[in-house]
Amino acid sequence: MFPFTLEEFQARIANTKKKMEKRGIDVLLITDPANMNYLSGFNGWSFYVHQMLVLLIDEEQPIWLGRGMDANVAKQTTWLMHERIISYPDYFVQSREEHPMDFIGKVLSDIGQSNRSIGVEMDTYYYTAQAHHRLKEALPNATFVDATNLVNWVRIIKSEQEIHYMKQAGKIAAKAMYAGMNAIQAGARECDVVADIYHAQLSGTDEGGGDYPAIVPLLPAGIKTGAPHITWTDQRYPSEETVIIELAGCHQRYHAPLARTITIGKPQQRVSDVADIVVEGLNEVMAFIKPGVTCEQVEAVWQKTINRYGLKKESRLGYSTGLNYPPDWGEHTASLRKGDQTELKENMAFHVIPGMWYEDFGVEISESIRITKDSCELLADFPRQLLSNTSIDSAS
Amino acid sequence: MFPFTLEEFQARIANTKKKMEKRGIDVLLITDPANMNYLSGFNGWSFYVHQMLVLLIDEEQPIWLGRGMDANVAKQTTWLMHERIISYPDYFVQSREEHPMDFIGKVLSDIGQSNRSIGVEMDTYYYTAQAHHRLKEALPNATFVDATNLVNWVRIIKSEQEIHYMKQAGKIAAKAMYAGMNAIQAGARECDVVADIYHAQLSGTDEGGGDYPAIVPLLPAGIKTGAPHITWTDQRYPSEETVIIELAGCHQRYHAPLARTITIGKPQQRVSDVADIVVEGLNEVMAFIKPGVTCEQVEAVWQKTINRYGLKKESRLGYSTGLNYPPDWGEHTASLRKGDQTELKENMAFHVIPGMWYEDFGVEISESIRITKDSCELLADFPRQLLSNTSIDSAS
Repeated sequence: MFPFTLEEFQARIANTKKKMEKRGIDVLLITDPANMNYLSGFNGWSFYVHQMLVLLIDEEQPIWLGRGMDANVAKQTTWLMHERIISYPDYFVQSREEHPMDFIGKVLSDIGQSNRSIGVEMDTYYYTAQAHHRLKEALPNATFVDATNLVNWVRIIKSEQEIHYMKQAGKIAAKAMYAGMNAIQAGARECDVVADIYHAQLSGTDEGGGDYPAIVPLLPAGIKTGAPHITWTDQRYPSEETVIIELAGCHQRYHAPLARTITIGKPQQRVSDVADIVVEGLNEVMAFIKPGVTCEQVEAVWQKTINRYGLKKESRLGYSTGLNYPPDWGEHTASLRKGDQTELKENMAFHVIPGMWYEDFGVEISESIRITKDSCELLADFPRQLLSNTSIDSAS
Repeated sequence: MFPFTLEEFQARIANTKKKMEKRGIDVLLITDPANMNYLSGFNGWSFYVHQMLVLLIDEEQPIWLGRGMDANVAKQTTWLMHERIISYPDYFVQSREEHPMDFIGKVLSDIGQSNRSIGVEMDTYYYTAQAHHRLKEALPNATFVDATNLVNWVRIIKSEQEIHYMKQAGKIAAKAMYAGMNAIQAGARECDVVADIYHAQLSGTDEGGGDYPAIVPLLPAGIKTGAPHITWTDQRYPSEETVIIELAGCHQRYHAPLARTITIGKPQQRVSDVADIVVEGLNEVMAFIKPGVTCEQVEAVWQKTINRYGLKKESRLGYSTGLNYPPDWGEHTASLRKGDQTELKENMAFHVIPGMWYEDFGVEISESIRITKDSCELLADFPRQLLSNTSIDSAS
């Protein structure tokens, strides 16, 4: 019934506690939905209200704290005993007077945690300034420690089961990319292309259905290809256009992102020139990657390749990915960029995305990879080239 | 090109400044993506990195501050002069040393705002505890004021153009609900139903395409109908089942949410009993709603109706809705619940969602409404009843 064995959850808890011990943290308050899922299995669209998982250094099972109507989600999706699931009344929700952290602070006091060393994920989306303020007021004798990304760093090495889900996500990503590529043509509306992409992302394959990716498909066209995070419109494509598709397949909350650049009609010379360089850079990076090299060494291989052609890229070349929830499928741990000395290890996974963005155009051709014993392998199998919807056969 | 006129944006700025004056706020830092969009037009999936709109009480145009690669999104989607768009280098993104608020604090200092009264949205998803901490460190002489929901309260009254977009969203919601209802049948996989729903949500109608809703379609089945925020699986439906669909149509970021309960095979008696009471309660609430009544009076009508049948509902009956981004299409202002004395006014819009959730089943039948001059009108036209996929003709 659960996507992972109880043993796997317990190993994750043990690895997290090791990091807590090193940092002197007695009580870890986990508000990142991916981290909550990772340790407990909790899986629902309830992160728009305050909720958390509490991991006590001296107890085996975490405690789930959240909104009343979401307690059933916790009962149905986590491996926790039901007495470890505690919920607050609905009048705490988006109230002008009450705050869920008043309730949560009281629970932590009631169970004797009020004067301990408490780790909080200070820079996690759903741990707001107000949440921290109210929690500190409710627990004046506690010592607060910044535990941002503590669990994320446990997540960076994937298990065999996680890799299995990411490979399924990779199959879905390729299917969705074919759907998008086939739909992009002169006269089609951008929103109808997204509809086809989403259909493929969600129906998935016969072996495994699609889950919602943490980011919507992005498909900037024309001048907007220089603005990678712009979303679609209901405009129709002209007879000649460059379109970037960046999407992910997602299965059991595990992602495999993928980006390609697709042209309608004759490709612009500057687009095909940059695409050729990007593919060459990506090939060299993929050939270089193996356990033991660092993130910044990988990025240096990229820069060296594109510098030969007079190109530069200021933004990072990629990032660790895997389990996630909106608004980001990146793990916020290792980035492929200058200064990041994280050593690559087997079963890390990265989205290598050499996006080149200029004032009025852009090119993206990316790959999601798993670090293997001695090199790396692709999560999604899709032609690594500038594409048109007539350039390759659809496998969908 | 923009979804609203410059005059409408300027009126929104003027209304926001009135509230700033009342609160003694000189500088408003806006991190809620919906509020950023409302005042500037900014529209991109970039809220996974720190960004903000700065509204100075003594200047006409806001300033956009965000990541380098998103400056082009700001240039292409906002009405701001390009010199009002300022971006930070990529090494600030998800770094272990640098924080975007260090950069933003410096910019605010450089433009002479470091010792003023600064409003921050303390309880907004993307204004993290760490963001606030770093900003306070960067601006030690500023006075920080909690401005959570300040702009949201300006947004609560919709313009004619906004209502127009919400009605388009309502058409899309109805179309998506038909798609879901038609796809739900014994043997179908949940993920394939979601694929059909998403296709309808995104393709929209000939008059207007679909935008991504702030919440994914939720379609708990069986025992999970008591856990409303649980998401789908790739399991197949059995021959008899209750399924709840909660979804929204979205157009130009404006939402019209809609929920229905659908049965496969013979409906359970308890489900049809509760559905009848919910429909009666909803009818009485709709007949009561008009400008001048308060949110808690609306909720009292609901409670009185269901109490006659021995039912109670602890959670709120609904909330203001409209423009939004993930993770919530609710506006975080008025809620239909006890204690909320917000008076209804023309062109407010609510999602009235009388969800009844029990340990092992639930029923949801909701409506999105606009308050009219003397009553209310529906945003989405869909049969208000317990449904099966053979109970009504599809209009899709």
